[in-house]
Amino acid sequence: MELLIPLDSKSRKPMYEQIYAHIRQEIRDGSLQAEDRLPSTRVLAEHLKVSRSTTQMAYEQLMAEGYIASRPYRGYFVTRMEELVEAGPQTEREMETSGEKDADCLVDFSPRGIDLESFPYNTWRKLSRNTLVDDNREMFHSGNHQGEPGLREAIRSYLHSARGVNCSADQIIVGAGSEYLLMLLSQVLGAGHRIAMENPTYKQAYRVFSSLSYEVRAVEMDSFGMNPELLERSGADVAYVMPSHQFPTGVIMPVARRQELLKWAAAGKERYLIEDDYDSEFRYKGKPIPALQGMDHSGRVIYLGTFSKCIAPAIRVSYLVLPKALLKRYREQCGFYASTVSRIDQNILYQFLAQGHFERHLNRMRGIYKTKHDAILAAIRPLETRFTIGGEYAGIHILLTCREPWEAAEQELIDLAARAGVKVYGLSSYYIHPEHNSHPATIVLGYASLSEEQIRQGAELLTECWKQK
Amino acid sequence: MELLIPLDSKSRKPMYEQIYAHIRQEIRDGSLQAEDRLPSTRVLAEHLKVSRSTTQMAYEQLMAEGYIASRPYRGYFVTRMEELVEAGPQTEREMETSGEKDADCLVDFSPRGIDLESFPYNTWRKLSRNTLVDDNREMFHSGNHQGEPGLREAIRSYLHSARGVNCSADQIIVGAGSEYLLMLLSQVLGAGHRIAMENPTYKQAYRVFSSLSYEVRAVEMDSFGMNPELLERSGADVAYVMPSHQFPTGVIMPVARRQELLKWAAAGKERYLIEDDYDSEFRYKGKPIPALQGMDHSGRVIYLGTFSKCIAPAIRVSYLVLPKALLKRYREQCGFYASTVSRIDQNILYQFLAQGHFERHLNRMRGIYKTKHDAILAAIRPLETRFTIGGEYAGIHILLTCREPWEAAEQELIDLAARAGVKVYGLSSYYIHPEHNSHPATIVLGYASLSEEQIRQGAELLTECWKQK
Repeated sequence: MELLIPLDSKSRKPMYEQIYAHIRQEIRDGSLQAEDRLPSTRVLAEHLKVSRSTTQMAYEQLMAEGYIASRPYRGYFVTRMEELVEAGPQTEREMETSGEKDADCLVDFSPRGIDLESFPYNTWRKLSRNTLVDDNREMFHSGNHQGEPGLREAIRSYLHSARGVNCSADQIIVGAGSEYLLMLLSQVLGAGHRIAMENPTYKQAYRVFSSLSYEVRAVEMDSFGMNPELLERSGADVAYVMPSHQFPTGVIMPVARRQELLKWAAAGKERYLIEDDYDSEFRYKGKPIPALQGMDHSGRVIYLGTFSKCIAPAIRVSYLVLPKALLKRYREQCGFYASTVSRIDQNILYQFLAQGHFERHLNRMRGIYKTKHDAILAAIRPLETRFTIGGEYAGIHILLTCREPWEAAEQELIDLAARAGVKVYGLSSYYIHPEHNSHPATIVLGYASLSEEQIRQGAELLTECWKQK
Repeated sequence: MELLIPLDSKSRKPMYEQIYAHIRQEIRDGSLQAEDRLPSTRVLAEHLKVSRSTTQMAYEQLMAEGYIASRPYRGYFVTRMEELVEAGPQTEREMETSGEKDADCLVDFSPRGIDLESFPYNTWRKLSRNTLVDDNREMFHSGNHQGEPGLREAIRSYLHSARGVNCSADQIIVGAGSEYLLMLLSQVLGAGHRIAMENPTYKQAYRVFSSLSYEVRAVEMDSFGMNPELLERSGADVAYVMPSHQFPTGVIMPVARRQELLKWAAAGKERYLIEDDYDSEFRYKGKPIPALQGMDHSGRVIYLGTFSKCIAPAIRVSYLVLPKALLKRYREQCGFYASTVSRIDQNILYQFLAQGHFERHLNRMRGIYKTKHDAILAAIRPLETRFTIGGEYAGIHILLTCREPWEAAEQELIDLAARAGVKVYGLSSYYIHPEHNSHPATIVLGYASLSEEQIRQGAELLTECWKQK
């Protein structure tokens, strides 16, 4: 049999998932029936002009979910229906985390997406090859617990020149993603802390702290960021902040407010600020303010950075810069933990940084995101009579806040957009206690993974559907 | 200037560290003086016939430690001595974790080493290239939180056929190393558990549990493994065991004892067994006993496996198999954590498994380790009058226990060996409370990373130096 699978190479949905979803649908529809034989992964790959590992991954997923089965020497067959295990909610969740979009969604303004079209794939491939050359067998031995010294030195040098961070390579800990590093940090800090978070905030960090059994105190923001008086009153001893570009509000914390926070931290014996500098690389106006860490003279700032936003999420490399007192504690209590990033990957990334590719890539991405940023600001101009624009000139998302007197409920705006084929996100979902908050209806629009054309199309659809009210 | 650096390609010490250590020594000696200019990384790489990234890594490490500095457009120079930052204990620690050996150590019987000489580097390189082909850009998007479905299915299939583990791919969680997975597991299990560990045990796991604030109860072993009566009396509700091949004692738990442990687990509402199957792949005699997990009908076994021992430590991929009740809890409480292993690496590993390379590699390694195992047993025969041999026929280490009446202290044996240029490890260091234990002097001999020649040489030196007493 032959499978005609329409593949969309522009889709954010990976090829293997498109193949998987198509075959699954065919089985559910009955177009493919029990005992039908599927083409081999080789034949299907040739037919669809994709790599064989892509078809293999699609088949493996179908097998994992019980839709198809393989028989030795005979190939792949559709399972009999009574054999089908109830796939249940996991399947949906898996799909969601892999970024599946609703079938009838034309434009998705997800603030989580990034632009991977412009990723220097060829360079990355070349560096991978160089790392795996013959005399680099050492790459397969276990490496330094904090991360390869070369990579840490390259990160230090970048942070110093680009972000004003003052540290030695010794203070840097490389880890597999920011969530892992927060887990590790919790072991360094110990239990029993009360963590203040800006409200609204990055919900993923909130989930990490909660799952680590920390008590989280939501601290309201004003237009300069976390309110220091409310912070003091919250009783927290650790504050997690995003001064460069707060997520999701887009607030850039002015220097005076930063100093107030540093003063707060220095005033208590065991007070710390966790500075999450997740997308500080992207700023389209004015001079970037150096990191909080660089202004700190009391050793109270824990700096957290990531390559997920500025290189690719799948790279899974983030880093912590610990103040010296915590570094000592880390070494005593957690120094035995082996690094969670493979040495091969660390070396690829090291070369990417040391050979200047990272800087070139950042400059390029800054240009690309600036163009998209300008495109979205231009495209939503017709909405300005009813919405105030916020969080612009930095990062990869903006906010639209409903002006009075037209006070539409957030959910109403989201529903109207969904009906028009546009997925948008309400600010409410980023609040720690959404039920206690009465902010005016606000929509978060991420634009990083959209093309200029999609941005324009999305903005037009929004203008149209929100006008009808 | 030209640097003559003697490189040993057979050494376990990576090339870049050899270069680093040589230059550091030259600076410390005064052979290289302040303001001396070093060759460029390119020239040095050509000269030493190594890749440029190797010389770059060496220089970066020297820079990170303040021995040399780079000046724009001029190159690398030796730092003036008064500028030298005190490198302190970190340098030593870094060196240790990177596997530096004592200069005067001829043979190191480290039980941590593995044989990487026979690693299929070419295959790995080829798979890496295949993964990074053009239509696989999806690899750079974020992936499934539990790990790629295809990889999980391949692990499931391997575990089922080779280890008798019964699970679905849904129950598998792929993570960056066993330590990370134990950290994650602790969030699923929650706080307040009392963890029983075999005594002696794998100290790294002990450190993880302790650092996660669990109360660890050391449970003595008999010749069948953890004593179930003592386990019951310990008051623990979770037991961490290595039934396939206990580390370090080498005890293989018989089926009857396994059933007793499963009965213990089933008797309490929230009791679990963590089965660490770290080196079950290597067994040289008899039929392997299937995993505890496969005998469990009450959903009380958490299975932990790793590719560190059977592929390479630097790969950083381990996996958990959760019983269904814990899987539900994992999804509710920790499902938001993104995978810590890069999607690219998961795909390389997936292909390694799915295309049969893993099985071939395992078969090959089994042969190689069997040869080394036989070589060490033959070579230590002269010691048998004074020592009992234990833990043979499986894994990659054996034990030598002092027989009465010749009761040498363990430390004495270690010191005598060290003076003869042989590094050996005392069993005492693996006890949870070494001070309470009065086992006869026992030496752990790891042989995986040694050549047959080194094994023979080491055994001869040991026979000689321990005879003189």
